[in-house]
Amino acid sequence: MSDLLRPSSAPSTAQSAAELLETLRAAPPLTHCITNAVVTGFTANVLLAIGAAPAMVDIVGESGMFAGVASGLLVNLGTPTPEQRAASLEAADAATRSGTPWVLDPVAIGALPVRTSLAGELAALRPTAIRGNASEILALAGMSAGGRGVDSTDSTEAARDAARHLAQRHGSIVAVSGAVDLLTDGERIVRLSNGDALLTRVTGGGCALGAVMAAFLGAARATGAGSLDAIAAASLVYTIAAEDAAAAAAGPGSFAVALLDALAAIEPADVIVRARVEEETR
Amino acid sequence: MSDLLRPSSAPSTAQSAAELLETLRAAPPLTHCITNAVVTGFTANVLLAIGAAPAMVDIVGESGMFAGVASGLLVNLGTPTPEQRAASLEAADAATRSGTPWVLDPVAIGALPVRTSLAGELAALRPTAIRGNASEILALAGMSAGGRGVDSTDSTEAARDAARHLAQRHGSIVAVSGAVDLLTDGERIVRLSNGDALLTRVTGGGCALGAVMAAFLGAARATGAGSLDAIAAASLVYTIAAEDAAAAAAGPGSFAVALLDALAAIEPADVIVRARVEEETR
Amino acid sequence: MSDLLRPSSAPSTAQSAAELLETLRAAPPLTHCITNAVVTGFTANVLLAIGAAPAMVDIVGESGMFAGVASGLLVNLGTPTPEQRAASLEAADAATRSGTPWVLDPVAIGALPVRTSLAGELAALRPTAIRGNASEILALAGMSAGGRGVDSTDSTEAARDAARHLAQRHGSIVAVSGAVDLLTDGERIVRLSNGDALLTRVTGGGCALGAVMAAFLGAARATGAGSLDAIAAASLVYTIAAEDAAAAAAGPGSFAVALLDALAAIEPADVIVRARVEEETR
Repeated sequence: MSDLLRPSSAPSTAQSAAELLETLRAAPPLTHCITNAVVTGFTANVLLAIGAAPAMVDIVGESGMFAGVASGLLVNLGTPTPEQRAASLEAADAATRSGTPWVLDPVAIGALPVRTSLAGELAALRPTAIRGNASEILALAGMSAGGRGVDSTDSTEAARDAARHLAQRHGSIVAVSGAVDLLTDGERIVRLSNGDALLTRVTGGGCALGAVMAAFLGAARATGAGSLDAIAAASLVYTIAAEDAAAAAAGPGSFAVALLDALAAIEPADVIVRARVEEETR
Repeated sequence: MSDLLRPSSAPSTAQSAAELLETLRAAPPLTHCITNAVVTGFTANVLLAIGAAPAMVDIVGESGMFAGVASGLLVNLGTPTPEQRAASLEAADAATRSGTPWVLDPVAIGALPVRTSLAGELAALRPTAIRGNASEILALAGMSAGGRGVDSTDSTEAARDAARHLAQRHGSIVAVSGAVDLLTDGERIVRLSNGDALLTRVTGGGCALGAVMAAFLGAARATGAGSLDAIAAASLVYTIAAEDAAAAAAGPGSFAVALLDALAAIEPADVIVRARVEEETR
Repeated sequence: MSDLLRPSSAPSTAQSAAELLETLRAAPPLTHCITNAVVTGFTANVLLAIGAAPAMVDIVGESGMFAGVASGLLVNLGTPTPEQRAASLEAADAATRSGTPWVLDPVAIGALPVRTSLAGELAALRPTAIRGNASEILALAGMSAGGRGVDSTDSTEAARDAARHLAQRHGSIVAVSGAVDLLTDGERIVRLSNGDALLTRVTGGGCALGAVMAAFLGAARATGAGSLDAIAAASLVYTIAAEDAAAAAAGPGSFAVALLDALAAIEPADVIVRARVEEETR
């Protein structure tokens, strides 16, 4: 079979995204975040804007029990202090045992040893989803030495096989962020091309998307939607809102503000009309 | 005596608030904050906007001595790392010994054991004021198991008796945040109904108010105003500014920005004209 | 010789600043920040806005190796947890050994003992630049007990001799922030008078400038510009952008947003036309 791209699955992915957005707002998922100090405020604001209920519980002795009752969990490795490292393992373990869907964002792994080691431990706990840029996904798959800091030095397409491999190895959805986002469950490969380059000019532009993914995975528990659809929904809602924000912005400062406004304003119908989804066939 | 509501005390509370705002701006109170990682930047910006001088000193070996010289202190338990827990006890103890007024904000206590235990220890040190949502106040009073995360699952009125009980037990002003804010010193009960629902769509909307309370308690040291009046002043200035911000906002992102602008712009006369205060009589 | 002020060096300092801004944008310097929890998000956004590549790597076991490969490093002592203190020494030591230029920002030293002691240790490692307000510079030079918190209680001119002394002692550029910024390499003294008072109403207004200095020191490695020129360039670009932001702002909230937009928009030609530079002659 050939690797042709066809837009045929777009309607169902977009339709599912619209429904999940509606579900999320009707019953805000309690979204547990263990995330880095740089973006924690912005991440909470993104979740509040979209209609979810954020809770940043990142200490030992609380993160496990909280992960057990939360709707979804994000573990982001941006500034992994010793306390957060222990709390992350406690939370991921509890999430896995209690069935709470969770997202691993292995920020800047590869060259930096502490987080690279931790990311390996966490991935072995079988996250529901793994989100990163191409360099991070390649590094987690053991196929590169990683990028420089948080910037990807590899293209999304270069990480295609690594993403599929990771997805199969850990039973996870893998989402590779870039100008085009690539999502895979190890079999299907979906590409989403909404968004705006200003997302790369705001700190937390990617990290906050990881939290939105955790929120949509939480919402999907109520609807029975699959994890790949939930991750796609998070990406579509977030990147379509980013397009609205970019249209209203005069630069990266006003873009970040407008993104929060746009996330609060986006309607399910907007997602259906504007989603740019392609599924790879084989 | 009947539990009638009467607006009669409104003029004096509002008048006192206006005077305290003027005092605060004439001599910015050094406001010491030990607060959570999610809201620390926003909290400092709120204090700067209103005219106070924030200082986020939250490490062991510095927080006690700083609390001794500060005008007011906030201890917020949102992300209580081991370092912050020790620094909080050091600061609260020093504040109590040196007469620095201080505010305890027991974020998300109830279900989460580490902070719940810490909140009990801190409350025993007799904070000048305790601020929380209804679920947090009920939990601190030992009358419920707390909410889910930072969201209150109880109404403000449901926490009325718990608030009065807490106030009497610890000699504190207790402020219950909600659509209507309820304040009590254990005897008087005052309700404030300014504000806007957008405050619940911005992370730190409540936490930053705790810092503003610490600043107004600091300002009140210069005027001889009572603690209940200072807490009411903080709430009124903050929630009236929130009304201005909501009028200028297109969503939660622009609301947070406009709130800072409004806090810098609000004048004492605005408080007098617009304060919505009711005191419960018995 | 007399201590006359002359504007004669302005063209060269401004010209150099414009060239460095162009260089920075053409090859974004990887700017390693160990900074305080209050301003870390804003600092990263400032760096992204101006065109640099921020990386907030502040844990032991990673900060040293990262400082060795970064283009520039900031060590800011605003909230020095034990982990950050160890990571700061690890990073500063690695930076010094590998030739990575680095900036020390000794926030609120003087009265607070933990950071004061740490600042002394770090200064002994010979930072490329030291940035602070007058009270901090006086305290680091051992000439005063420091300010109250982050506010300077001394004027910039009062710190002139302390700045020169510090610069000579540690082989550093010393930058004293204030309404007029004073820069010295121990011999030359340059005064910059761009900027706006709203910078003091936004948390991180000064701290983020330290990060911009680290970024410009990184850019200067490619051009061969001197460190004093790089520090002057950072200050000029930042404070001229602040003037644009102030013109567009309705208060401190909208100012912070507009500052990010202005940092992204400022062009090299703007710096040349608008820089207000005076060099002291002796």
